[in-house]
Amino acid sequence: MAKHMHLSGFMIHCPAPHTMLSWVHDEKVATHRWHEPGYWQSIAQTLERGKFDMFFFADQWAAYDIYKDTMDPVLQYAVQFPVHDPVVLIPALSAVTKKLGFTVTMSTTFYPPYMLARKLSTLDHVTQGRIGWNIVTSFHRNEMRNFGIDELIPHDERYARAEEYIDVCKRLWGSWDPDAVVMDMQHGLFADPAKIRKIDFKGKWYSCTGPASVIPSPQGTPYLVQAGASAAGRDYAAQHAEAIFGLQLSPESMRVFVDDIAQRARKFGRKPEDIKIMWGVIPIVGKTAEEAAEKERTLMARIPLEAGMALMSAHFGIDLSKYELDAPLKQMDIPGIQGILDAFISMPGKTITLRDAVTRYGAGVAMPHIVGTPEQVADRMEQLLLQGGGDGFQISPGYYAPAYFQDIVELLIPVLQERGLFRKEYSGATLRDHMSQQRG
Amino acid sequence: MAKHMHLSGFMIHCPAPHTMLSWVHDEKVATHRWHEPGYWQSIAQTLERGKFDMFFFADQWAAYDIYKDTMDPVLQYAVQFPVHDPVVLIPALSAVTKKLGFTVTMSTTFYPPYMLARKLSTLDHVTQGRIGWNIVTSFHRNEMRNFGIDELIPHDERYARAEEYIDVCKRLWGSWDPDAVVMDMQHGLFADPAKIRKIDFKGKWYSCTGPASVIPSPQGTPYLVQAGASAAGRDYAAQHAEAIFGLQLSPESMRVFVDDIAQRARKFGRKPEDIKIMWGVIPIVGKTAEEAAEKERTLMARIPLEAGMALMSAHFGIDLSKYELDAPLKQMDIPGIQGILDAFISMPGKTITLRDAVTRYGAGVAMPHIVGTPEQVADRMEQLLLQGGGDGFQISPGYYAPAYFQDIVELLIPVLQERGLFRKEYSGATLRDHMSQQRG
Repeated sequence: MAKHMHLSGFMIHCPAPHTMLSWVHDEKVATHRWHEPGYWQSIAQTLERGKFDMFFFADQWAAYDIYKDTMDPVLQYAVQFPVHDPVVLIPALSAVTKKLGFTVTMSTTFYPPYMLARKLSTLDHVTQGRIGWNIVTSFHRNEMRNFGIDELIPHDERYARAEEYIDVCKRLWGSWDPDAVVMDMQHGLFADPAKIRKIDFKGKWYSCTGPASVIPSPQGTPYLVQAGASAAGRDYAAQHAEAIFGLQLSPESMRVFVDDIAQRARKFGRKPEDIKIMWGVIPIVGKTAEEAAEKERTLMARIPLEAGMALMSAHFGIDLSKYELDAPLKQMDIPGIQGILDAFISMPGKTITLRDAVTRYGAGVAMPHIVGTPEQVADRMEQLLLQGGGDGFQISPGYYAPAYFQDIVELLIPVLQERGLFRKEYSGATLRDHMSQQRG
Repeated sequence: MAKHMHLSGFMIHCPAPHTMLSWVHDEKVATHRWHEPGYWQSIAQTLERGKFDMFFFADQWAAYDIYKDTMDPVLQYAVQFPVHDPVVLIPALSAVTKKLGFTVTMSTTFYPPYMLARKLSTLDHVTQGRIGWNIVTSFHRNEMRNFGIDELIPHDERYARAEEYIDVCKRLWGSWDPDAVVMDMQHGLFADPAKIRKIDFKGKWYSCTGPASVIPSPQGTPYLVQAGASAAGRDYAAQHAEAIFGLQLSPESMRVFVDDIAQRARKFGRKPEDIKIMWGVIPIVGKTAEEAAEKERTLMARIPLEAGMALMSAHFGIDLSKYELDAPLKQMDIPGIQGILDAFISMPGKTITLRDAVTRYGAGVAMPHIVGTPEQVADRMEQLLLQGGGDGFQISPGYYAPAYFQDIVELLIPVLQERGLFRKEYSGATLRDHMSQQRG
């Protein structure tokens, strides 16, 4: 049997995070909509009912226009755009939940470190210990241009800067001793100044005087999450992250990733088991195998080719309009993208042309669909962890999110719980507690 | 009779906003505390019960150390520090209220304009049309140093930059036509690309490509508030603000301010009546005049001299430790601060030494206490608007905030409502609706 797993709801504060047109729904399903707080609150409450560890928000700061050099298909089909700010959504979700954690993506390129450290510490107070930070260094040309930054920072310098950045943050989070606040009402004393220090940081890229403007928060530091894919990114994650979000399409490539992270973790003096690895997946669950298959056929049939092309072109920085859509994929040579195409080619099914690959990408980016009855899906999830390793899954909604997560929580979670693979109750109060919980 | 007035709760996300040691409370009063969301949620619910227009959050990004060149008294007495982030608190308050508006202070120096515009538009969605922006250009040396900015931007350049800044924001807020989003489920079309435009802004200080990453929000643009005191600041406010927050200690100086803003508004082609002026005040209400006077004596007796010295030194940029505390104030010459001292000298009572002035400042900054029975306080508020002009009040808590606002809402508001000076019900849904409401 696989070990106890961790589960996260994986979205973006946008109409359709990873499956194109998943904002489309049957009118019977729900009345509230993606740009209203009630939509997100209902999803958060569903995830908490299912005892999920957390609700994870990816983010980006611009629309893509790599494909055909235009934003039009991105706007027409809501291809990961518009993207509303996730940081100011989360407190509206923590207000209607008690236990569910929240991890938010914030970029070291766009937030000054003093601002980021302050927002996260405040969020840890507002959520009462339930906040995580997904650390990203941003890269997209269009994001830079929205911030008036003309030149891209070279990739490796990005991580050198990110090192210094997290150093500033950690110094700020440590600038108040845990017992610095006394709040002595009798003598009118708020804090002991001897237990609060300036940080007087002067680095190559950042400088900051401090101290932090927020008193020590329930978790002290936010729960740290990372998703680096490059060598520099993996080193950074192996050094700092408490959880890593991984995208792999097969148990074999999962295992390679797990072993690589373990090796890097040891290099930095950390135990591999102290870094949780969470895999992006899109389970499609039905009461019968046929119902599940029909759900997947419906969502696949809905993916507009132009949306998939715009999405995949943007993620890989290649304008795919220049390639032949219907030639056999095996014969094609598209620089920088061959790895993902090979993975699609090797997957079961008839995915053999670029058109097929693009449609599949539009239906879930590089996350596998796991389609079947609750028992079949639970089997596959257990098997993935046994064969590929890692600690759990980031579950992205394959169709209209409120209905999707209801299906997951009502159909799949009870099976995982019965098998002893997932908690029946939260044992702690904070996100870090949840991610450390060993047994259900 | 004065016209219908507008009311705002005026705080900072900190232990004791404008009255030193107002975090101290009688244990009977409440169990929750200032760093917990429940504390702020209860205050927001009280304000909404009292039909307040809004809950206004001032902000700052550092601790002060002008007084004696140390942060120690600031830390010891919580002198407007620690200050938790207000932007991520507000969604937790809008989640437990339906009508109350929220105005948040965000600095044009520390937030990049694309980030600020996105956060405010998202907040307008999350609060369903109840967000306002208090526009500030920051200035404090210590704030700059937390952001690694060594040199202060000259005052007038600050406002020239702020002009360009708001231009970028308004272009972003206008980059989607109101009918750009179609969400046509039948054809799978999200938006009409022809109705969404890049802004391609290249200015002297800012550049930004756009379009906005947020769809048009309920208010379109956040409600714009400003508090400029200098000539450049007043021009900026007269040009852009829908409401101005004013601090004056007498009806005569209020009238001078109102006339000055009216003149500047006309210069920019605006009607003076389209700019609401809200005065900072601290009503201390008791069931009897003696109970109110006793409340004020208690809070005044609590103000630590060092806290008042640190606060006043910081706000005026002068280390007051260098001056004689007990000499008659009239004989002193303290550069840059004489205006406020003259105002204190001219107020009724025995405020005649620097010690007295500093204690008074620590008890409410430059906001007058209005002390008495509900009828007496209502008389004074009505009189202030009749004599001084303006449209309403920003009410800062003179003592422990949850209890303070309960007293205001239970004792004072009903008297204002009976006199037809304040609404009995909200007539609209958005903050802009509330601030435009003419009758109760």
